[in-house]
Amino acid sequence: MNYRVIIYTLGWVLNIEATAMILPLACALIYQESCAPVYLLCALLCLMFGILCTAKAPKDKTMYAREGYVTVALSWIVISIFGAFPFVVSGAIPNYVDALFETVSGFTTTGATILTNVEVLPKSLLLWRSFTHWLGGMGVLVFLVAILPLCGGKNMHLLRAESTGPSVSKLVPKVRSSALILYGIYTTLTLMELILLLFGGMNFYEALNTAFATAGTGGFGIFNSSMSEYSPYIQNVITAFMIIFGIDFTVYYLILMRKIRQGFRSEELRVYLIIITVATLLICANCWNLYENIWDNLRNSAFSVASIISTTGFMIVDFNTWPELSKAILVILMFVGGCAGSTGGGMKVSRIVILFKSIFKEIKIAAHPNRVFKLKFSGRIVEHETMRAVNVFAISLLFIFVGSFLIISLDNYNFTTNFTAVATTINNVGPGLDLVGPTQNFSLYSPLSKLVLTFNMLVGRLEVFPMLILFSAYTWRKQ
Amino acid sequence: MNYRVIIYTLGWVLNIEATAMILPLACALIYQESCAPVYLLCALLCLMFGILCTAKAPKDKTMYAREGYVTVALSWIVISIFGAFPFVVSGAIPNYVDALFETVSGFTTTGATILTNVEVLPKSLLLWRSFTHWLGGMGVLVFLVAILPLCGGKNMHLLRAESTGPSVSKLVPKVRSSALILYGIYTTLTLMELILLLFGGMNFYEALNTAFATAGTGGFGIFNSSMSEYSPYIQNVITAFMIIFGIDFTVYYLILMRKIRQGFRSEELRVYLIIITVATLLICANCWNLYENIWDNLRNSAFSVASIISTTGFMIVDFNTWPELSKAILVILMFVGGCAGSTGGGMKVSRIVILFKSIFKEIKIAAHPNRVFKLKFSGRIVEHETMRAVNVFAISLLFIFVGSFLIISLDNYNFTTNFTAVATTINNVGPGLDLVGPTQNFSLYSPLSKLVLTFNMLVGRLEVFPMLILFSAYTWRKQ
Repeated sequence: MNYRVIIYTLGWVLNIEATAMILPLACALIYQESCAPVYLLCALLCLMFGILCTAKAPKDKTMYAREGYVTVALSWIVISIFGAFPFVVSGAIPNYVDALFETVSGFTTTGATILTNVEVLPKSLLLWRSFTHWLGGMGVLVFLVAILPLCGGKNMHLLRAESTGPSVSKLVPKVRSSALILYGIYTTLTLMELILLLFGGMNFYEALNTAFATAGTGGFGIFNSSMSEYSPYIQNVITAFMIIFGIDFTVYYLILMRKIRQGFRSEELRVYLIIITVATLLICANCWNLYENIWDNLRNSAFSVASIISTTGFMIVDFNTWPELSKAILVILMFVGGCAGSTGGGMKVSRIVILFKSIFKEIKIAAHPNRVFKLKFSGRIVEHETMRAVNVFAISLLFIFVGSFLIISLDNYNFTTNFTAVATTINNVGPGLDLVGPTQNFSLYSPLSKLVLTFNMLVGRLEVFPMLILFSAYTWRKQ
Repeated sequence: MNYRVIIYTLGWVLNIEATAMILPLACALIYQESCAPVYLLCALLCLMFGILCTAKAPKDKTMYAREGYVTVALSWIVISIFGAFPFVVSGAIPNYVDALFETVSGFTTTGATILTNVEVLPKSLLLWRSFTHWLGGMGVLVFLVAILPLCGGKNMHLLRAESTGPSVSKLVPKVRSSALILYGIYTTLTLMELILLLFGGMNFYEALNTAFATAGTGGFGIFNSSMSEYSPYIQNVITAFMIIFGIDFTVYYLILMRKIRQGFRSEELRVYLIIITVATLLICANCWNLYENIWDNLRNSAFSVASIISTTGFMIVDFNTWPELSKAILVILMFVGGCAGSTGGGMKVSRIVILFKSIFKEIKIAAHPNRVFKLKFSGRIVEHETMRAVNVFAISLLFIFVGSFLIISLDNYNFTTNFTAVATTINNVGPGLDLVGPTQNFSLYSPLSKLVLTFNMLVGRLEVFPMLILFSAYTWRKQ
């Protein structure tokens, strides 16, 4: 294990975090909030450790798969540990476990909160909270790769461990250029949403927060009522952008390159849009008697479906009060999640489609054991390696789900609450059902359960393997 | 597709069912019940169709994998359709969908019931109900293979499609002899339980019913209180036999062959016993304040754990009132199920272990992509084919679970009820939680939901593939 290159990278992650804290600092100064020194203090702390680790560049910058996974897992843990300090030091969330839960929820773009009243927090702290969504959405290491010639171009392992979906497709041959393009698209889309929100009458502060939280598919709101008080126009804009940020960024790149037809040929995109349409219509039909007119019904259904499948977690209506079928659909959409290569969480549409197709392949094999059948996705044959990775991903997620569910059951809340609490954190969604429903929060759980759910959020965002490899004894054994 | 051999086999299945109805007929005659002619009528109906199908043996008796799966799936559907007639004709369950649910629940050894009061049923009908457990436990086609030289010794496909677990291990080279030995062990163990129950003061009728329902790991009781009114001795005997019938029958064969050490070397057996012990102790600790003394606590916990993991479904205590951790453990045990090659349902311990190990293998590969790692189970390397089959089995079960859960949510019962209703039927357990808890029943669901749950029971018992292959358009397409 090349420890020096790991520590060096972690140092740069801390330097970036220190820089990121300038944003809430500026906000605090503008609104003349008393907590301005907090960010300065926390940024200096990050910088201190950061400079210590990056003072001397390691001679051997090689990073193999193992180092890649470990670096990514540790980066996310370190950035969360330091990112929680502003909440604790400012006194807004005095308990460190709570603050860690909130920060991990931010960076992993989950959006689950332990706060019962977010409106009492200083504006700058709420902005920091939303900004963690934006930073975590596209990935901290993707950003690092984009701005630094980190390990002599051998950053593929970092990118692979942090980006979402069953296989990484570089946009262009160079890893660094790919990362730059991704961040370019990400920033442009965020700005577009910001402008459309301003156009709808939101003030700049609210619009910035909302755009950050949508872009990362995070879901932290700055009001207790989330997005329910806003105008239908604003709600519809958010619906559209939640769907947009749940789509594979490769599609936008292809559109930019004027390969529009190729972009829309993506099988994952088509399935994603079909699922959204079908789910919205089913919920509309199921909630027929609940709303005054069909447009309210459609807007509420579409918003909730987009919010859950993109794993954002905003709400404009308490779906906890919906009939069981609608709630069941939402719980299943939590697991589906966005497209691979988006900022969304969950298992990803592509994995679901590949798993579904593998069943049909097996039926054919069972009926004709001597023939050879190939599984195709988006016109390409799915390699055995990808298939195996998808299977093991689903199985690991299942086992971690079961383990977490058992531990948090110790707190003795009911089955629905515990089940959806794990589902919503491991898929980086935000709200669950019943006691962790959209109008509720996670403050009810014990510190142990909160740590378990925090772990789940990291597992979900990093798609299991980096965390498993970090905590596996085998990784650390001398070979 | 060789239709003639399929119809011929189905005919024999019906002939066997007609013969099986002699048992309730005899019971009705002994107890002088008015419903005696019902069994005669239903048996004649079976025999009529049976003789029609078996009148002329097909010239071409070859049965490939496809025919094997289709035959097994159809056999189970046909035997259930005819097996439901005594309930309808006698007037005990006038609704045919209800009667079919009850019969499939019997044959698949689930033990879920739509009856609110079983004690009003004639004794002979309750015996037929328990007897379906016994017939379904080891398998109808295994029985057929044992007594008939059906397709010139080429019955491996039938056995494979009906027996439980990721891979079939014939006990002896000849398929027919294997089937005979299996039924021999099955009958002997059933008799042993019967004798021990009689020894505990049960009358012969009750003991026979209980032995049938335990042997098949079914769980139909003849009292509304299930096994809760019996003495601790009888409850402990049942606990022991529930565990025994959840063990791979190969182990008993090896013990018979005096290869005792080899029998106990089974990794699956060890894990099965460890899970039972750990789950019992955890539940004991979790329910510490609920019971007067530790022995009551231990007996209740052990009985419930054995009942759920073996997928029998008897109860001596309403675990619906237990704390959430205990309930969560039971729900997870539903999915674990018994050992491969037992009469138990669920996913089977071996599959769980193989899936669990595949995660660790993947962690090793991720850390060292260029090395080769082999997955071992019970000292043998797990072949790629087996691994793939286990994966696809788990994934198919998941998709069917989700689909069923969505459909039955239409009835608008709560999340816990719907989730555990699907879990308990697809794993062939019997009771769920909340509204389908151990003191409740499935009468609340609509006919559509009952049909979905009936399908789940068949899917679970036949381990997915035969049913999927039967309903796949690909199977029926001309090649």
